[in-house]
Formats: sequence, C-alpha cells, structure tokens
Amino acid sequence: MADEALFQFLHSEIIQYVNRAETGESENGRCVSKLENMGFRVGQGLIERFTKDTPRFKDELDVMKFICKDFWTSVFKKQIDNLRTNHQGIYVLQDNKFRLLTQLSAGKQYLEHAPKFLAFTCGLVRGALSNIGVKSIVTAEVSVMPACKFQVMIQKILLGCDRRHWCEIRFQCEYGRGLC
Amino acid sequence: MADEALFQFLHSEIIQYVNRAETGESENGRCVSKLENMGFRVGQGLIERFTKDTPRFKDELDVMKFICKDFWTSVFKKQIDNLRTNHQGIYVLQDNKFRLLTQLSAGKQYLEHAPKFLAFTCGLVRGALSNIGVKSIVTAEVSVMPACKFQVMIQKILLGCDRRHWCEIRFQCEYGRGLC
Repeated sequence: MADEALFQFLHSEIIQYVNRAETGESENGRCVSKLENMGFRVGQGLIERFTKDTPRFKDELDVMKFICKDFWTSVFKKQIDNLRTNHQGIYVLQDNKFRLLTQLSAGKQYLEHAPKFLAFTCGLVRGALSNIGVKSIVTAEVSVMPACKFQVMIQKILLGCDRRHWCEIRFQCEYGRGLC
Repeated sequence: MADEALFQFLHSEIIQYVNRAETGESENGRCVSKLENMGFRVGQGLIERFTKDTPRFKDELDVMKFICKDFWTSVFKKQIDNLRTNHQGIYVLQDNKFRLLTQLSAGKQYLEHAPKFLAFTCGLVRGALSNIGVKSIVTAEVSVMPACKFQVMIQKILLGCDRRHWCEIRFQCEYGRGLC
C-alpha cells in the first residue's frame, strides 16, 4: 500500500511539473513526449532488475506474458486483465482498472487529460521491451476511465505468416498457452 | 525490491528533468526548491495514508519517532539509524546509508550534487510533519556519502524549557523511551 501510494503521488507530481515546465505552441505534445521518455528510461532500468534471475524468454509471446504478468504486478500491483494479439506483432494489453487513472474523475470532460496519465506507462513498456531486445511503438487509448488499452506494435519484418485473425491470450493461472 | 527500484529510478529521472528545466541565474537553488516542493506534497499525501489507523500522537517526540521508524521504513525500507534532539525543537535524523545517495559515487567531487538528491526527502519530511500539524524547516547535510543527516527545526515558541543539552533517542527495539 505504501509503495503504491508513493509511486502514485510522485507520478502525479511529475505530470503537474512537466505540464507547467513545457510551455509553448505544442506544449501538450511535448509534455507527453517528456513523460514518455522518462518512462522509457525507468522501464529500461526496472526490467534489468526484474529479469535478473528469470530464465531466457522462449519467444515474443513469452516476453509479452512476462510484461503483462510479472512486470505489471510489480509496478501496478495487479496483472493485465486481457492480452490479445494478431500474431503479426501487434499486442493489445487491456487493464480494466488502471491504477494511474483511478485518481481521475471518470467524467467525460477529463478524457482529454488521460494521455498525460498514460504517457509514462507507454514509455515504461517500450523501455522494458527495448532492454529485452524488442523494439516497439507503444500507444494507449481510453474510452471509459479507469479502463485503458495499451497497443504494442513490435517493429520487425514478418515472413511467411498467414494468421490474420486476432487471438486472446490466457495467462490468468500459471503462464498458460496462447489460444488460436 | 521492485518498488524500491521504481522509486529510485523515478526519483533520478525527476532530478534530471528538473535540473534541465530550471535554467537561469539561480538555477541550482530553483531546482532544489522545486524538488523540495514536490516532496512536500508527496509527504502530505503519504502521511495521511500511513496514519489512517494509528492512534493519536502523544507529543512531538512521538511524532518524530513515527517519522524515523514507520514513515522512513515505508519509503526507504529501513529506519533512521540515529535520532537526536536538544529538547528545544531541533531534531537530527541520521541515516548511515541513505537510499537515494547509494547510486552516487562516494567520491568527494560528487558532494556538490548531493543537495539535489536530498531536496525531495527534505520536502517529504516537512510535508508529512505539516499534515500532522507540526510546522518545520528541514535541511540536510552530507559529509561522507551515502550517510546523511536531516535537521528538523520545529517552529514554535518554547516557554520554561531549561534543558539545553542534546539527547539521543533510542527507538531501535519497540518504540522506546527518550534518554535524558
């Protein structure tokens, strides 16, 4: 409880500070990008600690399951509620009660502020993946707070993949298997 | 371990960002003051959570013991190593291995950077105390890293106090009693 509160309060302070510090024409975009960069470096550092004693990852899906389960639990005290993939390098991570949005009012008028509250985490995931050697682009989207979806696009060239449908990955109990 | 790393990485990022954002003549002073203010607000928030289920504090010393023991352990995963007071509103909290300094090299040439790494924590203590109703000024001092001393000056008028010597407070095992 204590650590969670510390992280949440600190995260809010950073948003507030960066928001004030970045003034100019494209201030909102710059604020989001600064927060994303901070998250990136923190993610890089964290994944090194978290994977210190874990065995080598089997494949990309194994990496994503680690992010959804172990990594998410360490940072947000819960795991991702749903993981989907198109098997072509796009993963959608859904968190039905994202910790960094729970302090915001769920009213629609606050939706415009959501990107600032998600940027750090997008960077966190991108940084974590990058240190495992997976280059990606991470974006986030909110329709009803505090639920949100993070889309991870793995940057690579896929050859000979004919699976074009979306699959849901189960990882609730033990690491589980992908369902296709 | 995970939470500690998250806090440490985030704290470093903030220092780096604030340091870059605050440019101008008195940049170093402004940077320290911004960090102190962030800590103040985080401390205010944290103490509310931490004291939710604790009984009312008996006196000022009781408050300080709580800061040194429970508060410090929640944030820094260890308690303050030594607490001293002159019984006139000045308390010196010594941490022999302060977590936010352990990443810095112990070389003397890095001592000038220490204030930036202590400002947030000074604010944290000031904010926590302020929300318990204790107005204070908190400063920090480092002679050999990673050890450091936080000096808390309680702002109040003391009447009829004739104790002018410094006392060491023991709180290692259970809350203990002040020794005079």
